[in-house]
Parts: sequence; C-alpha cells; structure tokens
Amino acid sequence: MSDLLQDLQWRYATKKFDPSKTVSQEKVDFILEAIRLSASSSGLQPYEVLVVTNDDIRQKIVPHAWGQEQITDASHLLVFAAWDNYTAERINMMFDLVNEQRGFKNQGWEDYRNMLLNAYPQRDAQTNFEHAARQAYIGLGSALIAAADAKVDSTPMEGFTPSEVDDILGLREKGLRSVVMLPLGYRADEGDWLVNLKKVRRSDEDFITQVA
Amino acid sequence: MSDLLQDLQWRYATKKFDPSKTVSQEKVDFILEAIRLSASSSGLQPYEVLVVTNDDIRQKIVPHAWGQEQITDASHLLVFAAWDNYTAERINMMFDLVNEQRGFKNQGWEDYRNMLLNAYPQRDAQTNFEHAARQAYIGLGSALIAAADAKVDSTPMEGFTPSEVDDILGLREKGLRSVVMLPLGYRADEGDWLVNLKKVRRSDEDFITQVA
Repeated sequence: MSDLLQDLQWRYATKKFDPSKTVSQEKVDFILEAIRLSASSSGLQPYEVLVVTNDDIRQKIVPHAWGQEQITDASHLLVFAAWDNYTAERINMMFDLVNEQRGFKNQGWEDYRNMLLNAYPQRDAQTNFEHAARQAYIGLGSALIAAADAKVDSTPMEGFTPSEVDDILGLREKGLRSVVMLPLGYRADEGDWLVNLKKVRRSDEDFITQVA
Repeated sequence: MSDLLQDLQWRYATKKFDPSKTVSQEKVDFILEAIRLSASSSGLQPYEVLVVTNDDIRQKIVPHAWGQEQITDASHLLVFAAWDNYTAERINMMFDLVNEQRGFKNQGWEDYRNMLLNAYPQRDAQTNFEHAARQAYIGLGSALIAAADAKVDSTPMEGFTPSEVDDILGLREKGLRSVVMLPLGYRADEGDWLVNLKKVRRSDEDFITQVA
C-alpha cells in the first residue's frame, strides 16, 4: 500500500501561503482530474469546479471570507459549486452521456433513470442541493489527497458567505451554489501558526465502532 | 506523482462481491486510518464509522437497502454516521482534546472555540446535521481512494432508509444518524453488470471553469 497515510499526515489547512510561488499547470490538472474521476451518487457529478486565478475576482471574495489572505496568496483558488437542484434536464444529460459513451442503451439503466426522474425533481430544491453538496465533498476529499500527493499545500475553506461568492462568480444564473473553496499553493517559510502544531484526531476507540 | 489517477480509474461501484473472500484486517485498518486522518470542518470530525461484520445485523439491513446483496456478500460494511447536532459538549470535547494533545492553550484557538460555541449549538439540528454529513463525505472520499489503493473493491451506497439503519445499529441513542454505507470486499468473477462498462465522467469543458 502506498504513501496515502503519509500524505494525509503531511497535509494541513495551510494558514499562510508564499505569494511568490505558483503551482504548475501539471499539478493543478492532476488535482482537477482526481476530482473529476471521483465517485458521486448515481454518477451524476452534481457539481462543478471553478479555478480562479484572476486577482481582482479573488480580491473581491476576500471580504466575504473573513478576510482570509490564503485566497489571494495562494496561486489558484478552487471553488466547488453544487447544482442548486436536480432537474429532469440535468438527470437526462448525464444518463444520455453514459449511453453515448458506452455505445448502447441498457434497460436496467433506463429503469434507473426513470426512477430518479420520478423521485428527484419533485423533491424540494434545498433537499436536492444538500444532496448535491455532499457529492462535492467526495471530490474535496479526493482533491485534498491529490494535492498532498503532489506536495501542494491547500486549505479547505467553508468560512465564507456563499451568496456573495455566488454573485461574484455569476453562479446563480448557472444554477450553481458555492459550497466549499480550496486555495492551492505553497506554504510560506514564516507566519503560519498551524504548520508546526500536532495534527489531532480522535483515537480509534472514539471514532470507530466494531459491530462483530 | 503517484498512481492516484489509476486507482480512481480502477475503482467502480461493485455490484457483485465474492462472498468467499475476506478483506484482511491490515487493509481494513489502512482504509479506516485514511478516514480518521481526513480533514473536517474546524477539525471536529463530526461523525463516526461503524465496521459491521456481524451477519445477522447485515441481513437485517438488506431489506431497508433495496435488497442490495453487496451488504452481506462483502466481508465488511462501513457505515458513516454523522452527529445529529452540534452541542457545546461535542465542540468542547474536540477543542479540549486538541489542547491536551498539543500540550498548551492558545488564545486564538480559544477564541475560535468560543465563536463556534456561540454559533453552532444555536442553529437548528437539521442544519448542523447536514453540515456534519458533508464532513463524513470527505472521509468517504478518502475511503474510496484508500480501498482502491489497497485493491479492495467497494460500493458507496446511499440507497437505504437511514432511520431503519439507525434503529438496527442503535445510532439514535448515540446521537448519530447514518448517512452513507460502504461495503468492502472483492468483486465476484461473474454476475457484475457494471464491472466491464466504461467509467463515464463529464469532460473538463463541462465540469471545470477557468476564471483567469
């Protein structure tokens, strides 16, 4: 088994990035591909990822994110934006894509499509959005591992006002809502209060229960 | 950079497990440790993981999970169970543990604790549960990668009635709610309709937006 556990130990929520360092396109692409390949419920991938490098836009986000300087000091800001609702159009788009890519229609798969079409669009938008947001967090889990694997620092960030970020990035008109952000960059040599502190997790006894 | 992308390509939502094969304790521990080390909002780890190997209990779950046989055919069933609410006790438990493990109190950290204490317990339980559930999905993302890394098959599974699973596992009295399950095992040689089908994901163009 690989270095996965060491990578998870290595990573931490970086508090101070070195603004002079830029993550290479190759590494950004690697992280994005890990997100894109991530599992999601029924394979719907009910979210999108924005890669914000534009300085003006990142500066506009900062005051709506508790002034966190990682947003502008890092070289890239990933924004995970979940579908605001499940619609028949979106469900059909993914099922049609699957059929097209696999080159055939499968009755079981069509039955499954119809089950989703009869279940999801009728639910309230908030329930659907919450479900979509969870799927984005699977992608976030992959991104955190991919970044650590590539020795890129990152900071998972929920401390922002989603409605403001949605406005700045024009997400509302695309039927998206921001759920979590992830600056990517390299830790500064100085000024990061967290970098040298022990990572703390509950013990197995307090986190895992065997039902044998 | 490592084999992460190949691992993500290799994995799929296994539809038929070989009931004669058992995942080794070493590999199960590896997957659990990847979950335990995963990031979570404010480091609260607001969920627990149950490792269900008991056959009777797994059989009781099946009828509440669309009869999915992976639950009993796989050798281990992981159940991710999120905190049903954020309470002062739970928040203090994690902040106290951090102080204890790091060996000192830090004013900034104490201020942050107080901010959470003044924000989370006052919110409605459903909002807090949804937030906790998202964190469990970061752990799910890690588990999927860890399993693939160890060449263990798995099936992320939302298709079950959480309230029934909560009853069977006695989660309610522990202040937990099941959110997603993950059988772990090895794919059967025959009978898996999905194993040879192409993994389909939207193209970069339809999943990623550059804001440069």
